[in-house]
Amino acid sequence: MNPVTLVQQTFRAIDVIRKKRDGVELSRAEIEGLVSAYTAGEIPDYQVSAWLMAVVLKGMTRPETAALTDAMLRSGEVLDLSSLPAKKVDKHSTGGVGDKTSLVLAPLAAGAGVAVPMISGRGLGHTGGTLDKLEAIPGFNVNLPVAEFRRVLEVCGCAMIGQTAEIAPADRKLYALRDVTGTVESPYLICASIMSKKLAEGIDALVLDVKTGSGAFMKSEKDAAFLAELMVETGERMGKQVVALITDMDQPLGNMIGNALEVVEVVEVLRGGGPEDLRELCLELAGWMLHLGGISSTVAEGKQQSAKLIASGKALEKFRQMVELQGGDARVVDDAKRLPQAQHTIQVASAKAGYVGSIQCEQVGTACVILGGGRERKEDSVDPAVGIVLHKKVGDRVATGEPLATIYYNAEARAARARQLIEASFEVTGTASAARRPLIHRVIGEKTIGKSGEKN
Amino acid sequence: MNPVTLVQQTFRAIDVIRKKRDGVELSRAEIEGLVSAYTAGEIPDYQVSAWLMAVVLKGMTRPETAALTDAMLRSGEVLDLSSLPAKKVDKHSTGGVGDKTSLVLAPLAAGAGVAVPMISGRGLGHTGGTLDKLEAIPGFNVNLPVAEFRRVLEVCGCAMIGQTAEIAPADRKLYALRDVTGTVESPYLICASIMSKKLAEGIDALVLDVKTGSGAFMKSEKDAAFLAELMVETGERMGKQVVALITDMDQPLGNMIGNALEVVEVVEVLRGGGPEDLRELCLELAGWMLHLGGISSTVAEGKQQSAKLIASGKALEKFRQMVELQGGDARVVDDAKRLPQAQHTIQVASAKAGYVGSIQCEQVGTACVILGGGRERKEDSVDPAVGIVLHKKVGDRVATGEPLATIYYNAEARAARARQLIEASFEVTGTASAARRPLIHRVIGEKTIGKSGEKN
Repeated sequence: MNPVTLVQQTFRAIDVIRKKRDGVELSRAEIEGLVSAYTAGEIPDYQVSAWLMAVVLKGMTRPETAALTDAMLRSGEVLDLSSLPAKKVDKHSTGGVGDKTSLVLAPLAAGAGVAVPMISGRGLGHTGGTLDKLEAIPGFNVNLPVAEFRRVLEVCGCAMIGQTAEIAPADRKLYALRDVTGTVESPYLICASIMSKKLAEGIDALVLDVKTGSGAFMKSEKDAAFLAELMVETGERMGKQVVALITDMDQPLGNMIGNALEVVEVVEVLRGGGPEDLRELCLELAGWMLHLGGISSTVAEGKQQSAKLIASGKALEKFRQMVELQGGDARVVDDAKRLPQAQHTIQVASAKAGYVGSIQCEQVGTACVILGGGRERKEDSVDPAVGIVLHKKVGDRVATGEPLATIYYNAEARAARARQLIEASFEVTGTASAARRPLIHRVIGEKTIGKSGEKN
Repeated sequence: MNPVTLVQQTFRAIDVIRKKRDGVELSRAEIEGLVSAYTAGEIPDYQVSAWLMAVVLKGMTRPETAALTDAMLRSGEVLDLSSLPAKKVDKHSTGGVGDKTSLVLAPLAAGAGVAVPMISGRGLGHTGGTLDKLEAIPGFNVNLPVAEFRRVLEVCGCAMIGQTAEIAPADRKLYALRDVTGTVESPYLICASIMSKKLAEGIDALVLDVKTGSGAFMKSEKDAAFLAELMVETGERMGKQVVALITDMDQPLGNMIGNALEVVEVVEVLRGGGPEDLRELCLELAGWMLHLGGISSTVAEGKQQSAKLIASGKALEKFRQMVELQGGDARVVDDAKRLPQAQHTIQVASAKAGYVGSIQCEQVGTACVILGGGRERKEDSVDPAVGIVLHKKVGDRVATGEPLATIYYNAEARAARARQLIEASFEVTGTASAARRPLIHRVIGEKTIGKSGEKN
């Protein structure tokens, strides 16, 4: 007779907390019990926050991470898109500065025949958010009901909305608690949060863009790769095809930062122009989406097909169609003046001649937040018109007095602070740096995909 | 300009949580801020429980532990007993089975001229509590108001009560949260909880009895010694003389377990009898109390003086006086039948002949809880009459059928379960064990005391 079993035990949160604290692996039933009881309001915040801190400090095994993801996914509605004949493929980025690839990729992949049911988030901190960018287009509605989301998807092949109340409510409740208890920074919790929401979209495959560098949440490539591997394995454990690209966020992606400005750059890329780094990353990610979507037999072929869709104007046509179907003013495609315009601009000039050695990417993102283009707090509203256009990127030669960037602003005081930050973020050196950071550092999950790709 | 300082910062719980999570030492101001804001209800349970879990897993430095103890101490009233001429010395035990030394020590040390303002707790789990034992004496009031506590102390030299609402309210609130969030098991938090309450008694010195063995919270001597060192150093940092004895709790202390039964054994010891282990530990602890109280120049001398006080009957007289002053029926001293009596007894006999090799001490404590003599939950009430009398201890020879213990009970079903546990807790072996565990394993803090002792 064991004294601990004197009282009849059922599921008790305290036991799950203690086990995690002591480094004992939790069962699927224990994790499922905790998530469902918390979502139902049956266990208090103070027990869950203690458990979250134990997870942050003790980590999770792969089966635990998959069980947590699954429990969070099943806390709400999982879209059933099986009636759509096309393969459903989404892309998710861990967030960066100037990262507007989603707006290019959804119409591009849809143009190739992949279905892209994309549920995105808003900007927070120094990083931008897809929903804010879409809302810079007058009339664009990111709050479609699920039935309407499905209709747009059926008609257009892609649709882009915000998270609904029905999708992964456990994640919403857990994230709010993590935000105020210092338990955001755990790859296991980040993985479960991202993957539960993405897999609730009813997708077959997922391309992850995990950012690394001075403008990313994961500054080191090691941390980025760890998270990427975790997400790929978790997705595979849940029966999905998942690949992760570790991509560079040591300087902003493309040249434009700010919601309306980024829409302008998206249209440029869809027209076959735009900055090289953004165009290249879009094609690479699109190549993977087409490959996983069963459209192309290789990634390289997917890239070629994507380039052709841009050249033929079909990708831009898809973008126009999606904007219209979601209530937006598609005339912005041909007339950028129809997007919100900032009242003033100011140039940031280089104090010396030389080469751009580095750009403190997070500071550029923060400058955009200061202008009003992003959020310091969730409840802040954003000014879609403001932002920054970079004229020089890392490795570029610059003369004394030559403009490094242009600031688009509506408030003088904010512009002055943003200018200081941008000036400080550019490092101009005497000699050109020998090695440039690659745009794509690594691909994780490729091997597994390769194998399953043969079966397609 | 640092982007993190965009928003003006004051004290924020989230920062303190993150620092502790990341293993950064907290300042005295940060710890004080957290404790005072929590006590005032200004920060929520869910932030504090996350912080507590970070403390459990990341630990605390000595200055942090002292700062936490100090903040908890100053969250409430600190008794000012400076008007009493005698030195104020208390004893605290980390809890065990059959540990009734407090009831012997308070009158014994008071008889020698030390003032003993003792604030104790109730039993929980397998361990007994001083308040429950005192309440076995009909009429004994452990809930004296502070003014009355002080009066008894002045008249008698000792007084024994429960924690008041005014003393260390932060500890009460924190303990309740720790209890339901798996954050009880941290030596730093245990140290701060014990020391904040004890130092709020307005004492000059403290003797700690840190138990180790199968019936203790700290099963290993290493853990017990770590906690002891932590408490000694924390006390010293707060300007108090503190010594800790690591003592054996691998079998019950003395022969009687159960509230009224333990009062009987206390009276036996105060009469110069009682079991050897209990008598010896009482004298050792009393020796230290007298030494720290400035009554004896050495511990050995303190022990001798204590033995004389028992032999002369003065210690028993003090006990009688304290019982009377606190409203209790002092006639129990001469007539044990006036204590609550169990209706039935049953013998537990040995199934074989040999030597008692070990007694699973925690199981014996649990057997007493099952009989109704202790609490599984804080809100349970206790039956003062029930308990266990051991007839054999570790190393004793036993014949087949000879009684190992007698169970005092009021409910048949409970007795049957307790009997099973007690039978299982005795290990009878063929040969006598060579080495017996010492009663006192180590003394911690002795050196420091020796030094300051010279100044007395």
